Amino acid sequence: MEKGGKLFHPGLSLDCVIFGFHDNQLKVLLLKMEHTDHWALPGGFVYKDETLEAAATRVLQERTGINDIFLQQFHVFGDPARSDRKYHSNRLKKLGIEAEKDHWLLNRFITVGFYALVEFSHVTPTPDNTSVACEWQHLHNIGNLFMDHRQILDKALETLRQQLNYQPIGYKLLPDKFTMPELQTLYETILGKKLDRRNFQRRMNSYGILRRLKETRKGGAHKAPYLYSFNLRKYQQALLEGLQGGW
Amino acid sequence: MEKGGKLFHPGLSLDCVIFGFHDNQLKVLLLKMEHTDHWALPGGFVYKDETLEAAATRVLQERTGINDIFLQQFHVFGDPARSDRKYHSNRLKKLGIEAEKDHWLLNRFITVGFYALVEFSHVTPTPDNTSVACEWQHLHNIGNLFMDHRQILDKALETLRQQLNYQPIGYKLLPDKFTMPELQTLYETILGKKLDRRNFQRRMNSYGILRRLKETRKGGAHKAPYLYSFNLRKYQQALLEGLQGGW
Repeated sequence: MEKGGKLFHPGLSLDCVIFGFHDNQLKVLLLKMEHTDHWALPGGFVYKDETLEAAATRVLQERTGINDIFLQQFHVFGDPARSDRKYHSNRLKKLGIEAEKDHWLLNRFITVGFYALVEFSHVTPTPDNTSVACEWQHLHNIGNLFMDHRQILDKALETLRQQLNYQPIGYKLLPDKFTMPELQTLYETILGKKLDRRNFQRRMNSYGILRRLKETRKGGAHKAPYLYSFNLRKYQQALLEGLQGGW
Repeated sequence: MEKGGKLFHPGLSLDCVIFGFHDNQLKVLLLKMEHTDHWALPGGFVYKDETLEAAATRVLQERTGINDIFLQQFHVFGDPARSDRKYHSNRLKKLGIEAEKDHWLLNRFITVGFYALVEFSHVTPTPDNTSVACEWQHLHNIGNLFMDHRQILDKALETLRQQLNYQPIGYKLLPDKFTMPELQTLYETILGKKLDRRNFQRRMNSYGILRRLKETRKGGAHKAPYLYSFNLRKYQQALLEGLQGGW
């Protein structure tokens, strides 16, 4: 906290929108901040000799326990009014640190947004030293967040929507085996709208990226649906041109 | 140069990839740097109270003379090894400035990449105070550039390719009236491959975003091709879902 000015690139932070899919819901990993009612995105600073991607990987590893994580830088947020100097000033006081007006934490910060796609079951949510809890929250239940974090989350979602045909989003978020309704729910959540079941299934099958397994998902009230897995080689090939076919 | 440390956000710059279309070629606006053989992307710094977008707009206005410019932030480049301290150190010497090791210009810089789409004929290329010339160069003739600017240019192109269905790229780059072969060349250049003439025409017409005019382009050796213009309302509507149709 005191040496940060010497260790980190000045005026630069990063924030991570970590998506996971569980119980047929798209979820985001959030931190409950100490001494406030706010929830926030996991984030951190960039060491002076560190790449942005290495810094994001480090933050994600610390919050999730996963080393090999799919992440993409998606936007920089640089509004001069975005920093919450009052929060940091109060926090420094609580820590007993006499903060000068030019303390490194009280300057303007721009933040680089990364989104990460993780397999829910692999994650061990772990709070950082500014937070008392680290929890998955259902996207639809997330309200306002600390500072401009809600805006960062919305921009991450918009990016997912645009990249749905160019990034292995389904592959990274779903477990190895999944049902067609699960895949459809994931698409519906990202796109923010209901899709027709038959059209969805036909279109998905037309891409040639799914393998229908012999197993079914047992235990539900309905007829047991078939399980699918991705044909990774064909998926990645299709993504090069865009799933809907290139020019 | 001396007061920059007080005026600008520390360790932060931006670089602009300015695209224009002329003579059936995609071109990029580059600066010929003073005292070196290097060409570079136009760029600048961000004032402490300025948004990133305002800073980019300011730089673009200064280099092109255009106020109302279409620009998009597309990536941050943050490799700790990307900065060319030697160049800046030499430049400061030439300007007769005694630069301490911690001079603001000699620190690590991360840079935010913006791409801009301009109508070629509206631009008045104008060098900045580090350059002796500002010129359009044909994309295919651009070799290495200063620092990591070639990498920034390549990433901008990759972004254009991915956003071809989601941003009004044709509308921003072409003049009000254009021929189908001109539109096709633009697409071919961005996609980096040849397209079939008939398929291209059929697909473009299927989007319902083009209006065929009664005029033709006269003067060529071949049969005079029809002129087209965009139906802006329909174009923007189609982009909301993606040109190839949404889900």
